[in-house]
Amino acid sequence: MITPVPARSLQRAHNFNAGPAALPLPVLERIREELLDYRGTGMSVMEMSHRSPEFEAINNAAETNLRKLLAIPDDYAVIFVQGGGSLQFSMAPMNLAQAGKPVDVLHTGAWTAKAISELKKGTLHNIAASTEGEKFTRVPRNDEVKHSPEASYLYFCTNNTIEGTQYHTLPISSAPLVADMSSDIASRPLDVSKFGLIFAGAQKNLGPSGVTVVIVRKDLAERADKNLATTLQYRTFIKEKSLYNTPPTFAVYVLGLVTEWIAAEGGLPGIQKRNEAKAKLLYDTIDTSNGYYRCPVDRSSRSLMNIVFRVAGGDEAIEKEFAKGAAAANLVGTPGHRSVGGMRVSLYNAVGLESVETLVSYMREFQRNKG
Amino acid sequence: MITPVPARSLQRAHNFNAGPAALPLPVLERIREELLDYRGTGMSVMEMSHRSPEFEAINNAAETNLRKLLAIPDDYAVIFVQGGGSLQFSMAPMNLAQAGKPVDVLHTGAWTAKAISELKKGTLHNIAASTEGEKFTRVPRNDEVKHSPEASYLYFCTNNTIEGTQYHTLPISSAPLVADMSSDIASRPLDVSKFGLIFAGAQKNLGPSGVTVVIVRKDLAERADKNLATTLQYRTFIKEKSLYNTPPTFAVYVLGLVTEWIAAEGGLPGIQKRNEAKAKLLYDTIDTSNGYYRCPVDRSSRSLMNIVFRVAGGDEAIEKEFAKGAAAANLVGTPGHRSVGGMRVSLYNAVGLESVETLVSYMREFQRNKG
Repeated sequence: MITPVPARSLQRAHNFNAGPAALPLPVLERIREELLDYRGTGMSVMEMSHRSPEFEAINNAAETNLRKLLAIPDDYAVIFVQGGGSLQFSMAPMNLAQAGKPVDVLHTGAWTAKAISELKKGTLHNIAASTEGEKFTRVPRNDEVKHSPEASYLYFCTNNTIEGTQYHTLPISSAPLVADMSSDIASRPLDVSKFGLIFAGAQKNLGPSGVTVVIVRKDLAERADKNLATTLQYRTFIKEKSLYNTPPTFAVYVLGLVTEWIAAEGGLPGIQKRNEAKAKLLYDTIDTSNGYYRCPVDRSSRSLMNIVFRVAGGDEAIEKEFAKGAAAANLVGTPGHRSVGGMRVSLYNAVGLESVETLVSYMREFQRNKG
Repeated sequence: MITPVPARSLQRAHNFNAGPAALPLPVLERIREELLDYRGTGMSVMEMSHRSPEFEAINNAAETNLRKLLAIPDDYAVIFVQGGGSLQFSMAPMNLAQAGKPVDVLHTGAWTAKAISELKKGTLHNIAASTEGEKFTRVPRNDEVKHSPEASYLYFCTNNTIEGTQYHTLPISSAPLVADMSSDIASRPLDVSKFGLIFAGAQKNLGPSGVTVVIVRKDLAERADKNLATTLQYRTFIKEKSLYNTPPTFAVYVLGLVTEWIAAEGGLPGIQKRNEAKAKLLYDTIDTSNGYYRCPVDRSSRSLMNIVFRVAGGDEAIEKEFAKGAAAANLVGTPGHRSVGGMRVSLYNAVGLESVETLVSYMREFQRNKG
């Protein structure tokens, strides 16, 4: 048999991971409760046929919840795909790029760089704006964008997890907007009708990894060559309600529970308030630290989701000590991305204000001791 | 908050689903135990960074367990991908088909038909054998296969879930064997060195849906054009140990637990014995029913995993009644695939002998009452 685990009392971490990330405790409790027997079926959700009425209800609920939360218009499809945002870097151009019409891209950091790498494999594209010259410390203003006269679409990343930047006003374009919204979907109200396509790995604001939400205007999905691999065409997922082949059933189930939880928290307006209060507390702590903590991001572009900062002028030894002490205080996930260093604190939907309060107390104490 | 579920006493179903399918109860119990706090981390596995040492250990354990169970040679990579077998129908030719060298295919039913549909989108291929003329009631014999002189590889499906057939001796070919083993991987010992590539959605014998195991000879993965989308190249997963982008972390974790459970059950020889005993009991019940139950599959090709049969000469009303009565007796998943009708009982690794005993009792009683 499987080795048993000794019983212990529960101590949940303050989880600031960048993704996969914190999930709401009531969601986890519900999963635990239903794990051996989903609502009288005698089975775990993991053991249910994806063609069963029970799973179809789960699948429909996940879609319906998202449609309600994000007020998604009827001419948009909501589908659940696999492969993460990284596959979407390829799938979006495979499906939506048109011959002779470039994909315009706003380049804002590591994630748009990856999307550009995939475009370089044969899709006509144009870097319509880039803030690389400013080390990606802000997102481009609308007046900086050099649109192609006839673009297939304008691609951008609404929130940059590594650089800690976020768009607070949408880019304007006559071409459809296509957005990687992996790290801020469902964190604030959104006008979906402004977009052609939105994709988001669930593992930050919506659930576990293994399922990616795609919201796509149905007419745009018809651009794709029918000779494309069946499971790489959005239209396959649209036509079959994400059930062409076996979906990641458990991840879809958890996503359904998380969206139910968001609705109960007041929907996107309620979640936005929560998220703004959390981010304000942390930014204020940074900004009132007399420079001991410093956020390199331009104020116009500061992310509410991923807050990056340096400690003691970017002293790496002290930053290591900061992270180590934080972990010892049950504050998990504070080190910045390995590519940029410093600290990064992710405040996705499921992170509670009390976690941020614990963190800022730790920060003040750390500064008193070391500053 | 999320609506609470009323407490009930646990009654687990006898689960004969074709996939997603039954999981071992000790695995589900372990998942439940660790759901809010994975081994003192204060987090669910779903909440852990895929770059954390804890998840890296989970990822390594899943790979190591599979390597041990299947005795996978060192020149093979074991990777975890998303998209299911259906994406592999495209990924295998994208990576392994060589210009001017056809993919030879053994056509044995609905799943090879889907693979062939994807090949038709631009990959040179050759139907080297087909049993369509016999309604797929058996798999081809080696002497029937018309090999191409210089094939990129020979493709086949080791077990056909819908038709209830399975290879009991491997096809022989000078080209690498590429197999869809979604429905019988890890159900019996296997000589991996005979294969070029094996893929298998986990949701039948290895875990939940959402993760697909690919076992590939490393030199073959180098055939792929580097211009292929990064997440559609096997070499990306090999190089990054399946961590190029966020993997389906929870599914990999469950797969690790299931492989641990299989090892504890005596590894593949132990599981094979279990599976043979289960299948024998059911086939014997069918074969000694004086024709009331009838399995249409040729004895040489009968599957140990998916047992298909007709009731009362294929009387659809009686078959419906059979399935309804079975469900009432807590025997879940007996109707055949919607495309072929009849009954289908899947006896994957996690289905216990006691479930089959309960089923055959039900079958005998049904025959007594209706036959």
